[in-house]
Amino acid sequence: MCELLAMSANTPPTDLCFSFTGLTRRGGDTGPHKDGWGGVAFYEGKGGVRCFHDADASASSRIAEVVQTHPPIKSEVAICHIRQANVGDICLANTHPFIRELWGGRYWVFAHNGQLSEFSAAPGFYEAVGSTDSEALFCDILNHLRSHCDRDTATEQVVERLVQLSRNYARQGGVFNLLLSNGDWLFTFCTTKMASITRRAPFGPPARLKDADVTVDFESETTPNDIVSVIVTEPPLTSDETWDIYKPGEWRLWRRGGVVVMQGSEL
Amino acid sequence: MCELLAMSANTPPTDLCFSFTGLTRRGGDTGPHKDGWGGVAFYEGKGGVRCFHDADASASSRIAEVVQTHPPIKSEVAICHIRQANVGDICLANTHPFIRELWGGRYWVFAHNGQLSEFSAAPGFYEAVGSTDSEALFCDILNHLRSHCDRDTATEQVVERLVQLSRNYARQGGVFNLLLSNGDWLFTFCTTKMASITRRAPFGPPARLKDADVTVDFESETTPNDIVSVIVTEPPLTSDETWDIYKPGEWRLWRRGGVVVMQGSEL
Repeated sequence: MCELLAMSANTPPTDLCFSFTGLTRRGGDTGPHKDGWGGVAFYEGKGGVRCFHDADASASSRIAEVVQTHPPIKSEVAICHIRQANVGDICLANTHPFIRELWGGRYWVFAHNGQLSEFSAAPGFYEAVGSTDSEALFCDILNHLRSHCDRDTATEQVVERLVQLSRNYARQGGVFNLLLSNGDWLFTFCTTKMASITRRAPFGPPARLKDADVTVDFESETTPNDIVSVIVTEPPLTSDETWDIYKPGEWRLWRRGGVVVMQGSEL
Repeated sequence: MCELLAMSANTPPTDLCFSFTGLTRRGGDTGPHKDGWGGVAFYEGKGGVRCFHDADASASSRIAEVVQTHPPIKSEVAICHIRQANVGDICLANTHPFIRELWGGRYWVFAHNGQLSEFSAAPGFYEAVGSTDSEALFCDILNHLRSHCDRDTATEQVVERLVQLSRNYARQGGVFNLLLSNGDWLFTFCTTKMASITRRAPFGPPARLKDADVTVDFESETTPNDIVSVIVTEPPLTSDETWDIYKPGEWRLWRRGGVVVMQGSEL
């Protein structure tokens, strides 16, 4: 198993660095995820994705340090993953997030938590480079989208397809927590553990990280119009805020900091 | 125009950091390439690619600093690019090297120097995310390979196809200096400027960088069996070594530090 973190924001936030500090501490310091740091992908500008991968445990990883101390990365969507190897060797090719181009003009980014014991990918255009079932799953999703939708398909229909696919995958093993983005929206699906928090300006008192003795004052580091949502696998990162826990089987679609469509909504 | 650098080695070398120091100095310090640092891709382990992109001028870029001071990256093939924007905005999506998966199991990495005034990409599966003609060209190459070869095609036949394609592209504008790798081999094609140097142990006296007041003693930093080749666009990086200059229209295929097939060889 492993930890997932995603962010959706209406302006490039400082918030992600905050959450990232807590998450990377779990990579070998306060948590059991010593097998691979995984990585983080930040969408940046029109179509760009900046990606950092590392196979070292994150608490001691040089790349994680770079991300945390890097000059602010202007990003409205980010996906991060800390991996504990279950399937596949510990190597760079097996570290999430995975990236592929689909329909031109967009890179799609994927990270996944779980194991699908009965899953085997059908042949298709996209194929895994590494040996993880997660990357095979990602390729399978893109092959399905490519077969059944195109670049002009409405987002609602793409999401409907993603929900159907996610439910099918979840039946093939039971654990399937997913983050998937095309840089515009962020699709999240939970079978066992996921939680989100949406922070709007004014952000109130400083938040205390659960995994590190650090507090961050959002109000002094953001603008009055900011909306930032952070989605993580449980347990939530902060100990003094109320997180919105996903129900098993629940999905939510995020865009520019907020939920735009979710479980129970009309699709 | 822009600067290209590639490395092929039989063991993970320290050599690339050496060449990289010189190249990045050209990104805004000793050279004219202030419009974009571009980036570098290192193949690492089976199938893995570590990529750093930055849209800042390289001499002041934080990412370039990270690459130079990063713990040694174990890589047998690397491709680096410093970009001076001609076509396309200066943004992350337009920075080389570009990466795509082809035939499963491998990421292909591409960097290019030149402009193809008469080129327009045919529709195909791979499509550019950014707005550079270089990325469109890369997608066109992969679409051709996908149509005419498959994963079982012999390397010689793939290379023959690449040579034909390269010559066609070169006719469509005149300037076409290319680096392309699948992690196993590195294909290089020159229409106007390219030079290589192969260093074998023992490496002899320290080399002096042309663009920076730095010398590096290879002998103390490598093993007796090392072979490292560096391929760059002119002018060569070092002022006290003899570089092998490509002729216009010449191509070479590199693997594990040496040329395995080149212009004039039987294909």
